[in-house]
Amino acid sequence: MSDTLRRLAEVIESRKPANGGDPDKSYVSRLFAKGDDAILKKIGEEATETVMAAKDARVDGDNAKVLYECADLWFHTLVMLAQFNLTPDDVLKELARREGISGIEEKASRKLS
Amino acid sequence: MSDTLRRLAEVIESRKPANGGDPDKSYVSRLFAKGDDAILKKIGEEATETVMAAKDARVDGDNAKVLYECADLWFHTLVMLAQFNLTPDDVLKELARREGISGIEEKASRKLS
Amino acid sequence: MSDTLRRLAEVIESRKPANGGDPDKSYVSRLFAKGDDAILKKIGEEATETVMAAKDARVDGDNAKVLYECADLWFHTLVMLAQFNLTPDDVLKELARREGISGIEEKASRKLS
Amino acid sequence: MSDTLRRLAEVIESRKPANGGDPDKSYVSRLFAKGDDAILKKIGEEATETVMAAKDARVDGDNAKVLYECADLWFHTLVMLAQFNLTPDDVLKELARREGISGIEEKASRKLS
Repeated sequence: MSDTLRRLAEVIESRKPANGGDPDKSYVSRLFAKGDDAILKKIGEEATETVMAAKDARVDGDNAKVLYECADLWFHTLVMLAQFNLTPDDVLKELARREGISGIEEKASRKLS
Repeated sequence: MSDTLRRLAEVIESRKPANGGDPDKSYVSRLFAKGDDAILKKIGEEATETVMAAKDARVDGDNAKVLYECADLWFHTLVMLAQFNLTPDDVLKELARREGISGIEEKASRKLS
Repeated sequence: MSDTLRRLAEVIESRKPANGGDPDKSYVSRLFAKGDDAILKKIGEEATETVMAAKDARVDGDNAKVLYECADLWFHTLVMLAQFNLTPDDVLKELARREGISGIEEKASRKLS
Repeated sequence: MSDTLRRLAEVIESRKPANGGDPDKSYVSRLFAKGDDAILKKIGEEATETVMAAKDARVDGDNAKVLYECADLWFHTLVMLAQFNLTPDDVLKELARREGISGIEEKASRKLS
């Protein structure tokens, strides 16, 4: 797995109040302390911001904003995964399990049919 | 970077019609052929499905659904990144650049303040 | 209440399979037959499409697209309300109950604080 | 049109800084002062919160929360409409123009095909 994802997952895990994270000092601890809805609401927010950044990029050519918002979105999915005792490695294994694109496309086709 | 992410990014890139991808055979090629809005709409859709799966998981205890929908969300962000000539490695570098959680939390604090 | 909203709510209500709606003939009956998740997914989708239309409108000046997508969003919220045995009149009464903007702003302030 | 919608639209219009609205005192004036992205982000947020409230309602039977979040969503679409110089009456006319459900279903079918 990516070292960055593993390291982020470890630090996020350490931010859980049960693991000593302090909601007064840490944004992530605050999300965990607020619970599921605060975290899930961020998934919706960051997805919307990613879409807006992508639309903007076609006007001003600033792809960095897309990257930045996508990083925010991934980051908050990592917080959600931790909240549900899942890891980014689980997600990567699921993506690999779909046997590369062909597997994903098969699934997508089933889903869309 | 994660081998899975790199491999997925390569296969997705190869699905662009400009790279020989066939919209009649490939779901991803079809997304590229339809353009930005089709891809961005999927970001919104998959984010909503992830949120719904997480709510369900608290009722039926089925975290696998959360994992599955999160994989779908990540997958479609990879398609979006390719559409904007960005890579998952760019996202991981941005996440690393924020110097672990402390950097992200600093940014989040600025953003939220 | 608005005649249009009342009429739409009535027709939507009549599309419930329990009220004789036929999923083979009616898009709305099909949504009801599929259940909560199909309806809620549309809320997420139409919200994303509304946001994209608004971004586009700043580029091409086509406000009609914003109107069109907003109508789609409202329409699917009407389907959701029916699914939960609520009516658009309930929503209007809730909005009025907040005593005009001052009430809404008070609530928003509490929520945002 | 609904009196409540007309009244809300009038008060929202009066909150535009150009019409004397004060961002220091009014949440809606603040949204207008921040501009498009702040308003559109709220559409995404409120849609996500509506979806979460609906999922919760199936667990705790509290439909009032669905109503409340749907009112929030409608309210912020009214702010967006004002931002694009559109009115709720325009939306209602668009919905009526689709000639009741049959027109909407025809459109939805085209869109989904």
